Amino acid sequence: MIKDYGAGHRNHTSTTLLDDEELSLRLGRVRELMSKTGLKCALISDYANIFYLTGRVYAGWIYIDAEISRPLYLVRRPSCLKGESTVYVRKIEDIPAALAEAGLNITHELGLETGLLDYNSVSRIKKAFGYDIAIKDASPVMREARAVKTACQIRELAESGARHSRVYKTIPRLYQPGMTDIELQIEIERALRLEGNLGQFRISGPSMEVFMGALLAGSNADSPSPYDFALGGAGLDPSLPVGADGAIIKPGTTVLVDLGGNFNGYMTDMSRVFSLGILPDIAYKAHRTSIEIHRQICSMHLPGTEAKTLYDMALKIAEDAGLKDYFMGHRYHAGFVGHGVGIEINELPVLAPRSRDILQTGNVFALEPKFVIPEVGAVGIENTYYISQEGKAVNLTTASEEIIALDR
Amino acid sequence: MIKDYGAGHRNHTSTTLLDDEELSLRLGRVRELMSKTGLKCALISDYANIFYLTGRVYAGWIYIDAEISRPLYLVRRPSCLKGESTVYVRKIEDIPAALAEAGLNITHELGLETGLLDYNSVSRIKKAFGYDIAIKDASPVMREARAVKTACQIRELAESGARHSRVYKTIPRLYQPGMTDIELQIEIERALRLEGNLGQFRISGPSMEVFMGALLAGSNADSPSPYDFALGGAGLDPSLPVGADGAIIKPGTTVLVDLGGNFNGYMTDMSRVFSLGILPDIAYKAHRTSIEIHRQICSMHLPGTEAKTLYDMALKIAEDAGLKDYFMGHRYHAGFVGHGVGIEINELPVLAPRSRDILQTGNVFALEPKFVIPEVGAVGIENTYYISQEGKAVNLTTASEEIIALDR
Repeated sequence: MIKDYGAGHRNHTSTTLLDDEELSLRLGRVRELMSKTGLKCALISDYANIFYLTGRVYAGWIYIDAEISRPLYLVRRPSCLKGESTVYVRKIEDIPAALAEAGLNITHELGLETGLLDYNSVSRIKKAFGYDIAIKDASPVMREARAVKTACQIRELAESGARHSRVYKTIPRLYQPGMTDIELQIEIERALRLEGNLGQFRISGPSMEVFMGALLAGSNADSPSPYDFALGGAGLDPSLPVGADGAIIKPGTTVLVDLGGNFNGYMTDMSRVFSLGILPDIAYKAHRTSIEIHRQICSMHLPGTEAKTLYDMALKIAEDAGLKDYFMGHRYHAGFVGHGVGIEINELPVLAPRSRDILQTGNVFALEPKFVIPEVGAVGIENTYYISQEGKAVNLTTASEEIIALDR
Repeated sequence: MIKDYGAGHRNHTSTTLLDDEELSLRLGRVRELMSKTGLKCALISDYANIFYLTGRVYAGWIYIDAEISRPLYLVRRPSCLKGESTVYVRKIEDIPAALAEAGLNITHELGLETGLLDYNSVSRIKKAFGYDIAIKDASPVMREARAVKTACQIRELAESGARHSRVYKTIPRLYQPGMTDIELQIEIERALRLEGNLGQFRISGPSMEVFMGALLAGSNADSPSPYDFALGGAGLDPSLPVGADGAIIKPGTTVLVDLGGNFNGYMTDMSRVFSLGILPDIAYKAHRTSIEIHRQICSMHLPGTEAKTLYDMALKIAEDAGLKDYFMGHRYHAGFVGHGVGIEINELPVLAPRSRDILQTGNVFALEPKFVIPEVGAVGIENTYYISQEGKAVNLTTASEEIIALDR
């Protein structure tokens, strides 16, 4: 459980907001993976990882040793944070002395998030410890640790999912005839924010950018984007070429709403489809096929299954329905059908043909089999599931799944 | 000038959306700085830098040679981009062959944005070219190039500033009695979005996070944050500890609105103060002192001036007014009074005591002398200025500067 500080938690100065049990669950997982991969110690600084390990974002580092159960919190900012094993450190060059003072002498190797940390910062740390030190990559350990959620994290995700779903139910009421895609999106953004959405759409690494998510109306669903989302969209400006493009929502087309649900630092991912006027039969058929993919995956016992199996299954069902050309895009095709989600939108497991991930109890993933029908737009749903103790995918995003007419 | 593609520019497949003149201005500046710093060639991949060099964001790289005027565009995604000197590259390992095919053989050294690019990616590039190659840091060259804006960029910023200001003028009408800080912020966010704000708040590097900007009501202006903004705010959740904290706006307090203006990929930064009920005299005095700092800096001839001089001046004026204790925070003090702004919110020059930047014609900076009065909140204004050919700071954010009563 997260300690209950009430409204006061926001000003609480404890370095970690997690209770001892939750803290040792998360840290235990990280240390176990460190031992397994031969990583002796690591210095963690990525905000998402710091949030995972403490329940709050602060600027600084966390030193974790595979052999020593208590981590050392090296806080740079805010300087008001207090707690056991908390020391104040102004800059990278002060870290070795701070560790030495705590009886920790790093001599041979050090794990750093080299998949996230910029080259110059890694070099500065290396120099601070002396060039003899071997730098190892600690990012995979953190990624793997975070791929299996604790019961507490699943409760946070369930809370995000419930509030996310509540807002999606109001979407038909937010639509006004003649609206552009972005105008509708702005009203949904406002409704999400009023429900408590923090807005921040956390993505690991610099490869993707988006503002709160995407709303894709009609043919824009097939516009390519530089980013690695399932679908693209031209966007409003070449500086952010993704999502809504400002066109009026036209009869005979769909609106796929795929806005993020981040109500507490944990994101749920959900897409739903709305329509204007009558759609061609193939759109309804493809939508039902997406739902069928969800149903089949939900009927499976998932732990131990290869993540790529889910992609293969989805593709097979799409092929059998004669919809392969529209699966995951028409002009361009995304190479995955789902992805892990939690503190960030791109966590493990990855549901893609070449994924090596094996599904586990506690995984949380978004499944998004989508189809793009030319001249009509995108159909298909996306839900966020967790894998339960019973081995089943349990849905956290329960807004109704059929295509809802905006002009009913 | 950016080529006028009308609404069609969003789907235009040209690798660069800049016309030849603008392109050679920007590229010329980069190559001049490369020659000056002895950087022979560079491979650029940061989205903000790619947007600077092409007028669009794409995933991939731009190869720039200090000796050769034409760059090579290595596009990874979207694959539809076309144009002179454009080649498609699937992954890092394909870059050396793609360059060789274009007659470019990299043998001794290569510039990379090592201040931005993660360590693993730098290592992969190094390996792809053979370990003998020396990696140099290209990020300072790009940062310096972008610090001096072209006339075209200043027009884009002026457009953002005008639309930003237009929305700020409507803020008193958006307030309803009994509102919380976040409720007011959400209405301003919506108004900004409806005016065309893209939402994205671009920050270089991973050190800062915020959603659209901050609205700070009352004492929350003095709450510390892990991020390097002028003021903090507790935020709504420990996963994003910055900005509004959900408290009701109280009589006798101020509301400082500091939301970003990004209407075209170029951000303006502007803060304005609103009040509820009557404020103590010291709040009005501090606000007038902030305006006085702006006036004095606007009266100066800036090119050639050390950026730190502006900080020193601001601090001196605050001290002379007996307001030093409240300057740039009360419980915590920010160590700067302004910062360059453009594609990202944290560009050069930095207006801080230890800044080595020298102001130049074409610099665009946000000046934000702010004061935090205990129990009252933040006062002071922030404007975005460009340094004109005449050497003066010209304001791009012209919403009225006095404290405006929300309950008038």
